[in-house]
This record gives sequence, structure tokens and C-alpha cells, in this order.
Amino acid sequence: MPLTHFDAAGRAHMVDVTDKQVTDRRAVAEGVVKMTPATLDLVREGRAGKGDVLGTARLAGIMAAKKTAELIPLCHPLPLSKVTLELEPDADLPGVRITATVRTTGRTGVEMEALTAVSVAGLTIYDMLKAAEKGMEIGGIRLALKEGGKSGRWEA
Amino acid sequence: MPLTHFDAAGRAHMVDVTDKQVTDRRAVAEGVVKMTPATLDLVREGRAGKGDVLGTARLAGIMAAKKTAELIPLCHPLPLSKVTLELEPDADLPGVRITATVRTTGRTGVEMEALTAVSVAGLTIYDMLKAAEKGMEIGGIRLALKEGGKSGRWEA
Amino acid sequence: MPLTHFDAAGRAHMVDVTDKQVTDRRAVAEGVVKMTPATLDLVREGRAGKGDVLGTARLAGIMAAKKTAELIPLCHPLPLSKVTLELEPDADLPGVRITATVRTTGRTGVEMEALTAVSVAGLTIYDMLKAAEKGMEIGGIRLALKEGGKSGRWEA
Amino acid sequence: MPLTHFDAAGRAHMVDVTDKQVTDRRAVAEGVVKMTPATLDLVREGRAGKGDVLGTARLAGIMAAKKTAELIPLCHPLPLSKVTLELEPDADLPGVRITATVRTTGRTGVEMEALTAVSVAGLTIYDMLKAAEKGMEIGGIRLALKEGGKSGRWEA
Amino acid sequence: MPLTHFDAAGRAHMVDVTDKQVTDRRAVAEGVVKMTPATLDLVREGRAGKGDVLGTARLAGIMAAKKTAELIPLCHPLPLSKVTLELEPDADLPGVRITATVRTTGRTGVEMEALTAVSVAGLTIYDMLKAAEKGMEIGGIRLALKEGGKSGRWEA
Amino acid sequence: MPLTHFDAAGRAHMVDVTDKQVTDRRAVAEGVVKMTPATLDLVREGRAGKGDVLGTARLAGIMAAKKTAELIPLCHPLPLSKVTLELEPDADLPGVRITATVRTTGRTGVEMEALTAVSVAGLTIYDMLKAAEKGMEIGGIRLALKEGGKSGRWEA
Repeated sequence: MPLTHFDAAGRAHMVDVTDKQVTDRRAVAEGVVKMTPATLDLVREGRAGKGDVLGTARLAGIMAAKKTAELIPLCHPLPLSKVTLELEPDADLPGVRITATVRTTGRTGVEMEALTAVSVAGLTIYDMLKAAEKGMEIGGIRLALKEGGKSGRWEA
Repeated sequence: MPLTHFDAAGRAHMVDVTDKQVTDRRAVAEGVVKMTPATLDLVREGRAGKGDVLGTARLAGIMAAKKTAELIPLCHPLPLSKVTLELEPDADLPGVRITATVRTTGRTGVEMEALTAVSVAGLTIYDMLKAAEKGMEIGGIRLALKEGGKSGRWEA
Repeated sequence: MPLTHFDAAGRAHMVDVTDKQVTDRRAVAEGVVKMTPATLDLVREGRAGKGDVLGTARLAGIMAAKKTAELIPLCHPLPLSKVTLELEPDADLPGVRITATVRTTGRTGVEMEALTAVSVAGLTIYDMLKAAEKGMEIGGIRLALKEGGKSGRWEA
Repeated sequence: MPLTHFDAAGRAHMVDVTDKQVTDRRAVAEGVVKMTPATLDLVREGRAGKGDVLGTARLAGIMAAKKTAELIPLCHPLPLSKVTLELEPDADLPGVRITATVRTTGRTGVEMEALTAVSVAGLTIYDMLKAAEKGMEIGGIRLALKEGGKSGRWEA
Repeated sequence: MPLTHFDAAGRAHMVDVTDKQVTDRRAVAEGVVKMTPATLDLVREGRAGKGDVLGTARLAGIMAAKKTAELIPLCHPLPLSKVTLELEPDADLPGVRITATVRTTGRTGVEMEALTAVSVAGLTIYDMLKAAEKGMEIGGIRLALKEGGKSGRWEA
Repeated sequence: MPLTHFDAAGRAHMVDVTDKQVTDRRAVAEGVVKMTPATLDLVREGRAGKGDVLGTARLAGIMAAKKTAELIPLCHPLPLSKVTLELEPDADLPGVRITATVRTTGRTGVEMEALTAVSVAGLTIYDMLKAAEKGMEIGGIRLALKEGGKSGRWEA
């Protein structure tokens, strides 16, 4: 199976999407940051006015979605029409669950934008809590849903 | 325990490091991209001239390390003196293991730079292989080692 | 009144504009940099070949308009189709009057682009003249006109 | 009086600071966003969980300080060691008062970083409230204090 | 003949393209990096696994094409739909021949994107080989072809 | 001869400069934009108030020098302490001669910053004059001088 990001000679290129349809496209990605219950308590206290870890991570994720084409070498620049992030403390992990939803009207999908938003939100959570716990782990980053375009709907 | 990225009133700020020592600092971070054996074969073929997935991801990770302070809201900008990434196919995962090492001579550590390099290398691997497999998962992103500065050496 | 940049739970998001009409949109913003008559003379001499303060500020404003979505967290990225800045010395202020006009064909307005262009042009004027006068003041930054889109024409 | 940002022939350049001392430097800048009492109430409600306008603007200001050398053409890139923003609702304006404090250890001052942080925080406040009031005005942006370096302390 | 990037008074502006047609546009640019035969041998060995100079330059050129509107002050931001670079060792130069092809569907052409891709690919080749030869020369950067838009096809 | 930008296995990395001396470093680079005499006349008229092509290109070159580490994948970020560009019309080319001088106090040289400044100034000249002449050629981009650091002075 050939990889679309390389030409027949194996050289990287930004794929030609000129002739693809402009359609509404949507992608949802998710991930988690795992931490100790004590660290998760700090996140929850933040909501009580002691420092809003999740609010900061949410903005970082939204802004990162807009930088995706700068970060991922062969990604097309796209005019995003929606970016939302949900960050929910989960005592069972324990940790924080991150979900990002991105929409555009364009010639390629926004999977990478959603995955980038989740990743940078996770990194920001790590940054804000690392004074308390250096051993946190960011993981489970994956595409949950993709809609629009020729290949249609895909769900994890 | 107070979080350093917030002041006493819970407001986010970029911590004052003016009075911290300028010392050599090093951080190592790691992560994985899990995929099917068939997709991993595509990565390995790339090395044989069919499209260099790992070489592209390596450069993306190095360039992302330099963008860390743009992505992570409260991160200090630092003049990095070294960035290396190792990306190794691992049939047991199956998938690719990513390790990033970053050095600086400065007033704060480079944990976030190393973690950002790993994350963006992982996202780039996903991007280049997503035509073959949308269900890949990026995970296990964590700090492995931190050296230099007042708090000294930390190892996972 | 609910603020559009937050969801029902008060969480920041980039508003979904996918279903808004693609129309021609235009915004005009204005502002001033107030300075002493002696400093304003330096600006005027610049036009006579001693260093073009206003030309430099004009370019900085145009380039900043293109960076708006990077600077303003919840702003949509837009393909600007026109950016112009007028910078006029005004002996009555005394100081410089700045006006920016921005156009796009898109799903949201360009008010923030015009306001950002004015602000950065003002900051650049300050930067170039601060060796002469540190007490200059940038102010009066406001939207003068907005056209296009569902909400129609608005004028200050 | 010659302007330092131009050479003898009036051509713009980035001033040579190679031979200047590396010292601790600090700058404080301030500004306001004026709005109706009704709009200011929306800001205050945000603090009560309906959407944190000031928290968003604070992060935007901090991140913008790090982008100053990208925005202001002749500004030197500097490794900032501290950035804080205070944003206080003021019923007398009525509106929001913004104060930014920036520190570095370097060869030039951080006035432009502090002024840029204030400006972008102000623009972000405008962006988040513009659905409620388009006529808000950003103003009073000025340097309040400058310390460090050969020219010493300056206060407005 | 008036230059389009200035208004009637000679002030720089970003030209208004709002009323231009959205059409498919393509540009091809080319350039060379001249070096000694010994240095060119290093490039060729890289292909044999000793360090992929051309692969690195190719990615740098693709990523630079996406940054064109940030680099060229009066350039319009455009959603690129294709970017490819060819880098071919040429013993007759001796050196490397670079060709970039860029496509978009938009209101202005992509000449600057193609020329920027060639230039940054050339700079990257220089960077990677400068330890071996500081006297390399980058040159012959020119537009080879332009298609689409009102002015039609142009070929060098 | 091994290339410093690759490790023993041929993998790209950002070279470790942690143990290199912090010294004053300077680089001078040069290049030309060749055009017809008629186009060169447009450049000269610009100086007479009809649109300042060279002033715009000078600023673009200075700003690009600050972006070098973003553009060149394996380049270290450096705090530049001086950037100047000279752009001189030359009837013998005919065209414009560009010279950039960059200084830093750091662990690596600023050759790439000087070469990048020349290249982007050249691209900007092309952009501003392309309505008059598409066949212009940018060339002769090379390092003229390098000083500071362990390897000492090098002159073309």
C-alpha cells in the first residue's frame, strides 16, 4: 500500500488536494493525562479559584489547533470554523480526560487539528502540575470520529 | 500544595526565574505510537527508500522543540543547545518508540521541550500513516529524566 | 446576555461558524499615539529621509493583521483579501492618527484584524520613538465601521 | 536628536547591543478597556463561572509578550524571565484596568514586551465582549516603569 | 508604471483582491546551490544512509511555503492545496537543482510561495553542508511558470 | 568527512553546542536581484516617494533574520544582538545588491541568519516588482565573512 505523503520515488510532498471537493468536515479526538489522586485534587481545587489548570489547557489546545499546519510538516493549512475542547477530571483514571472537536469547510479533513489540540492540552496540564508530580503520563491519544469528504464517516 | 504557575489569588502567570542559577540542564522524554504489524511494515519499508516516515517525524519533533514556548502558555522561552530524537520500530508494541533529549544552559528546565518534541513526532507519524490506519494510538508520553538546576536529578 | 465565546457552562471555545454565510466583510478601526510636539517633529523629519517611522509602523500593522488568529485565542483564522493602514501626523493631538481597513470573504468579520493592525502599528511607533520620549500614550483604539455578514453594517 | 532605530542615512536597522551590559531589567506597562456598566457586569459574572474573560485575556497577554520580537520589526529577541498581568474591573471607568510586568536578564529593556502584553490583553477583552458591545475603547496604553540598564530607572 | 504594492501616494499596502476570481492557480520556481564536487559527493552519500541532506531540505522548503505570508510583508495568506519540491544533484553545476511547484484555489497567485520554498530549501542545503564548504553559492532563483488568474499563463 | 548535522547512523539532529564557548560572533552575507534597467528605475523612483521598495525589503530581511531557527530545521535559536541590511541599486547588474550583517553573543555562529536575511529581502524585492517584471532572478547568495568562535575568521 502506498503512503499518500510520499511520491512514487518515496519523496515527501504535500499531497495535491486541488481537485477534492470542498465539504463540511469534522473530527473528534481524545486522550488522557494520568496522575495521582492527590494531583487530581489540585486540578479540582483550581476550579475553586486556586488556579484554573483546565481553563489554561483548554485555551492552549484551541490555539494549538490553529498551529497544526506549522507543526506537522505535510499538513495542509485550513481555515478552521470551530474548535472546542472538553477536559473532565476522572477519579477512575485517575486523571483528566480530553476531547477535542474541530470543524472546517475545506478540501481535507481536520483529524490532525483535533489530535494536535488534545496533545497540546495534555502537555499544558503536565506543565501546570509538574511541580507537584513529574511522573504523570499523557496517553490514549487517538481519533474518535471523522466525518465529511470522499471517504465518509469513520468512527473508532 | 501551591502550583507555581498561579499566584496566591489563583491567577496564571509566567513564574519569575530571574534569580535562579544559569546551569546546564537536560531532559529526556519518551512515548510510543501503537499500530498494527502491517502498518509498522510500511514504516520499515520507508527506510528502504519508499518514503521516510521516521526521518520526517524526527525533523518535526526537533522543530517543535523550538516552538515549545509558543505552544505552552506559561513556558519560558529558552535557547536550546541540543535536540535529538530517536525513533525505533518495535515489533512487540507493535509500533514506534520515540525518545527525545534536549539540553540548554539556562534558568529553567527543558522537560516541556522534550515532551513537546515527542508529542509532535508522534503526531507526525500518525499523519503520515493515517491513510493506512486511522486507529493508531499515541501514548506513554512521560518524562524519563531531568538533570540540572536546584532540584537536581530526577529519573522516572 | 450570553457571551458567544463561552458555552453554556462558561467554558471558552472557538465558536462554530460552519453554517454562517461566506460574504464580503470589511472593518475599519482607528487609534492614536499621543506625543510631544518635539517628538512629532521627529516623525515628520523621518519623511524627509531621516528615518521612516510611519512606513515602518505601516508594515508592522499589515503583518500583524495576518497574525491576529495567533494572538487572539478564540479568533478564527481568515484569508484576508485587503489590509491598508493610514498613519497621519496631527499637530492638534499632538501625535499620529492610525486607521486600518481590512477586508475578507469569509464566515466571520475582520474587526479583530483591523484592531490588531492599529495596535501593533501604534506599538511600533512607540518603539521607534521611545529613545526620544518614553511617556507617549497609545489610545483611542476602537472599531469605526463593520460591514457584511448577518448582523449588517455597524458604524461608531 | 537622532532616532536609534535608523542609521545616519535614515535606514532602519536593529541596533547593535552587543557591547551593552547584561543586567536585570524590568518594565511595567498599563492600559484600560472602557465599556458600559452592563458590559462590565458580564465580565464580573464571568468570574462567577459564566465564562472567564479576564483569565483568557491574561493568558493572551502573557503569550503575546513572548511574540513581541515577531511583531515589532526592530525589537531584539529576549529570553523573558517573568511575565505577569493584572486585570481589574473598575466601576469608575467603567471598564478593566490592565497592568503587565516583564523581567529579563539581557542587553536591552523589556518595555515593548510589557506594552505588547497590555495591548493584546486589551484586544482579547474586546474580542470576548464584542457581541455585547462593539463601541468599547482600548486606551491609556503607556509605560509606567522601567528599571535596569545604563539609562537606569524611569517612572511615569 | 505604477507598482501594485503601493497606493497613489507611494504607501505600501496589501492589495485588495476581494473582487478577483477564485480560480486554480499554479506556480513553478527553480534555483540552484553550487558547491565543489567533493561536497556534492557528501550529498550523494547521504542518500546512501549517511544523512539525508536533500530530504531535510525538501521538508524545510515545504514548510517554508506555508510561512510565505509571514515572511513577505505584503503577501496575501493563501490555503495551499499542493507543495512539492524536487532536489536533484547535478554534476555539471556542480551542485543541486531545486524545483518547487505550488497550487492553490484562490484570488491571487502562488509565485511567492514557490520562490520561498526554493530559497529555504537552498538555505537548508547550505546549513547542512557548511561544515564541509562555506563558499557554496545559492542562485538562479526565478519563476519558471505561472498559471491561472486573469493574467493567464506565463513561462520563463 | 562526516556532516555535523547527522549522527553516526545518518540521523538528523540539532548538534550539541552546550560545551562551546559563548563568544561574540558576526556574519556578513550578500546576494543580488537582477532585473531590467526599466525595473531598476522603478526602484529608484520609489526612493523619490513613489513607494519604498528597498525600505520594505530591508524590514522584511531584518524580521526574517529573527525567524531563521523556525525556517532552517537544525538551526539553533539565538538571541541576535544586531541585524543590518544594505540594499543598493547597481546599474551595472542591473539590479539591487543586498548585504546583511548579523551579530550575536552565543555558542554558534550567525551565518544562517545573515543568509536568511539576504534571501528574504531578495524575495520581497521580487514580490514588490513582479507586476512589472516576472523574469527577475535572485542569486549570488553567499557568505562573505564569519568571525568569532573556535574556528575563527573566515572570509570569502
